Amino acid sequence: MDCPIPIRTYPIVTLAHGGGGILMRDLIEKMIAPLFANPHLAPLTDGVRLQIPGELAAFTTDSFVIHPRFFPGGDIGKLAICGTANDLAMCGAEPAYLSCGLILEEGLAMEELWQILQSLKATADEAGVTIVTGDTKVVDRGKGDGLYINTSGIGLFRHRIRPAPALIQPGDVILVNGDVGRHGIAVIAQREGLAFDTELRSDCGLLWPSVKVMLDAGIDIHAMRDCTRGGLASTVVELASSSGTHMALDATAVPIHEAVAGACELLGLDPLYVANEGRFITIVPAPQAEQAMDLLRAAEPALTPAIVGRVQAATRGHATLRSEIGAERILDLLSGEQLPRIC
Amino acid sequence: MDCPIPIRTYPIVTLAHGGGGILMRDLIEKMIAPLFANPHLAPLTDGVRLQIPGELAAFTTDSFVIHPRFFPGGDIGKLAICGTANDLAMCGAEPAYLSCGLILEEGLAMEELWQILQSLKATADEAGVTIVTGDTKVVDRGKGDGLYINTSGIGLFRHRIRPAPALIQPGDVILVNGDVGRHGIAVIAQREGLAFDTELRSDCGLLWPSVKVMLDAGIDIHAMRDCTRGGLASTVVELASSSGTHMALDATAVPIHEAVAGACELLGLDPLYVANEGRFITIVPAPQAEQAMDLLRAAEPALTPAIVGRVQAATRGHATLRSEIGAERILDLLSGEQLPRIC
Repeated sequence: MDCPIPIRTYPIVTLAHGGGGILMRDLIEKMIAPLFANPHLAPLTDGVRLQIPGELAAFTTDSFVIHPRFFPGGDIGKLAICGTANDLAMCGAEPAYLSCGLILEEGLAMEELWQILQSLKATADEAGVTIVTGDTKVVDRGKGDGLYINTSGIGLFRHRIRPAPALIQPGDVILVNGDVGRHGIAVIAQREGLAFDTELRSDCGLLWPSVKVMLDAGIDIHAMRDCTRGGLASTVVELASSSGTHMALDATAVPIHEAVAGACELLGLDPLYVANEGRFITIVPAPQAEQAMDLLRAAEPALTPAIVGRVQAATRGHATLRSEIGAERILDLLSGEQLPRIC
Repeated sequence: MDCPIPIRTYPIVTLAHGGGGILMRDLIEKMIAPLFANPHLAPLTDGVRLQIPGELAAFTTDSFVIHPRFFPGGDIGKLAICGTANDLAMCGAEPAYLSCGLILEEGLAMEELWQILQSLKATADEAGVTIVTGDTKVVDRGKGDGLYINTSGIGLFRHRIRPAPALIQPGDVILVNGDVGRHGIAVIAQREGLAFDTELRSDCGLLWPSVKVMLDAGIDIHAMRDCTRGGLASTVVELASSSGTHMALDATAVPIHEAVAGACELLGLDPLYVANEGRFITIVPAPQAEQAMDLLRAAEPALTPAIVGRVQAATRGHATLRSEIGAERILDLLSGEQLPRIC
C-alpha cells in the first residue's frame, strides 16, 4: 500500500507531527487511523471502552527500543506486537486489545514509519488482536533513535487454568517450545555485519497458538514464561527464585540451532543466555509432559520442543545446569551487559 | 526516602540496567518494586490479572517526553500519572490500574530516576490508582533524553453516564474547569529561562475528582475532553469536527491568568492554543450548566470554571470564536509547531 501522506510534501517526521496541530491530525487521521481502522478506534477519543467477559483481564506493557529496527525474521513493528501478545499468552490469557504509543525522532523517514506501521498491522491481524488506542510523540533530532514503540495489552481469560509461579511443584517438568538463541544472534549479526553460512532468522513470533492448544486440551500448566532478555537460563533462574524450588536443567537436552551454536562460540556468548522472541518454557505435571510435547509439535510443526529439566524440592529457590560431561553448576543471572537493545 | 541502590556503586544508569541480568534485577527488585509495592505487582510476572467489575473497562495510553523533566508545578513523573488518569476520567471512568514503561538513557543520574519514581508513586497514590505492571529499557547515550515514560491505564465504570462526541446536541453548553494556558507557559518559561513578576505554575493535576462530582450528581455529560496539546481551541475544533456541530466560543468568557496573558503577548502565542495538563471541557445540556458550574467550583475551590461557549446545529462540524470587539472567526488547528515536547 502506498504511504498516504505524500512523500513529496513530508518525506520525514517533523516536530510539528507531534504538536497537536494540523500535521499531527494529518499523520493520525490520514496515515494511522485508516490503516488500523476498527470500531473501537473510530471515535479517536482519549480512551476506549472495552467489554471484558467474565470480569477478569490480563494486563501488561512493553517498550521496544531494538537496534537495528529491521533484522532477519522481523522488525520493531512485528516485535512490538509479538512481545506484548506473548506476555499476555504467558498469563494464560488470549491476547485481545493493544495500545500503541509511538515516540518518533524528528527526521525519521516517513516511508520507513509507514513500513513499520504496516508491519504492526499485519502482525496484529495475525495475532487476532485489535489496536484500540494510541499516542504519538515526536522528540528532537538526537534525542531518540528513529522510533521507539510501547505496546500495552489486555488479554481475556477463556480457560479455567491460571498459571502462576506459586503453582510450581517438585516433580514438575520444564518444557521449551523450540531451539533457543536465534533472536539475539540474528540481531547482533545484522548489527555487526556478521555473515554466517546458514541464514539465521530471529524466532520472533506469536506464542498464543501453542499455549491455546495446551489449554484447550486441559494441560494443567503450572507456569509459563517467555525467554526474552537474559535467555532461557535467566527465565529459569527467575522462576526458580519466585517459586522457591530447585530447577535442574540438562544442557544436552536444550535444542540449539547449529548456526546459533557456531555464532555463540565465535562471539564468546552462552546460547542459554541469548535472547529469544518466540520461545517460552512451560512447567507442567510430569504425567502430562509427553501430551504437552505432542501438542506443541502439532501447533508449530517447524519447531522442536524439548523437555529440558525438572523441578525439585529446595529450601531456597535456585537453578542448576548439568553439562555434557555430567558436571552440575549453579546458574545465575548475567552480571554484565551481553547484548544491549535486543528488544 | 534514600535511594536504595547505593549511589557510590551505580551513580548513573548503565546499559546493563536494561539487559535482563543482575543489575536489571537489582534496579527492579530493590528500587522499583518496593516503592510501588502492591499485591498485583508482587509476583513480578510478565502480566497481571485484574478484576473488572461490570465487564466494561476504559483503556488508554500516553507517552511522556516533556523537556525539561522538572518544571514549576510538576515533573515528568507527576505528568505521566495525571495525563493517563485524566484520559480515563474523560471517558467517564474511574482511573484504577496503570502500567509504567520506562525508557532510560544510559548516563541518567540514578538519584534523578529515584526522584521521578517517587513523584510517580506520590501522584499515583493521590489519584487512587495502582501501578500493576511495568517494563524498563535502557538506550545508549545520545539515543534518548534522560528518560521517557509510557503509562497505559484501565478505568472502571462506576456511573451509568457514558460521554461520547456523538451525544453532543445543538443547545448544549461548553464549560471549562479553570483558566487556560498555564502548563505550556510554565514549561516554556522554565526551558527558556524566562522570569515573570508572578510565579506561574503548571496546572498539571488530576481531573477525576471534578468529573466524579458531576457524575455523582447525575449531570448528563454529553462529552468531555482534556485540553492538552493544542490547547482549548484545538480541543473544541476536534470535538466540533467529530460531532458535526458548530461550537461557538466567546473569547471574553475564557478565563486566562494575567501572567499567562502577559507571557503570551511577549512570546506571540495565543493562550487558547497553549497546552494545559489540568483543564478540560465538559459539554452538558443547557438546563444543567449552572449546576455543573457549582459542582466544579465545589470540587476545586481554587479554580474559576466558566461557560465558554455553546453548541449550534451545523451542516458540517466547525468552531468559531467571537472576539472582544464582537467579530467572529473560524477556529482551526495550528498549522505549525508551537511548543514542542510540552508533555
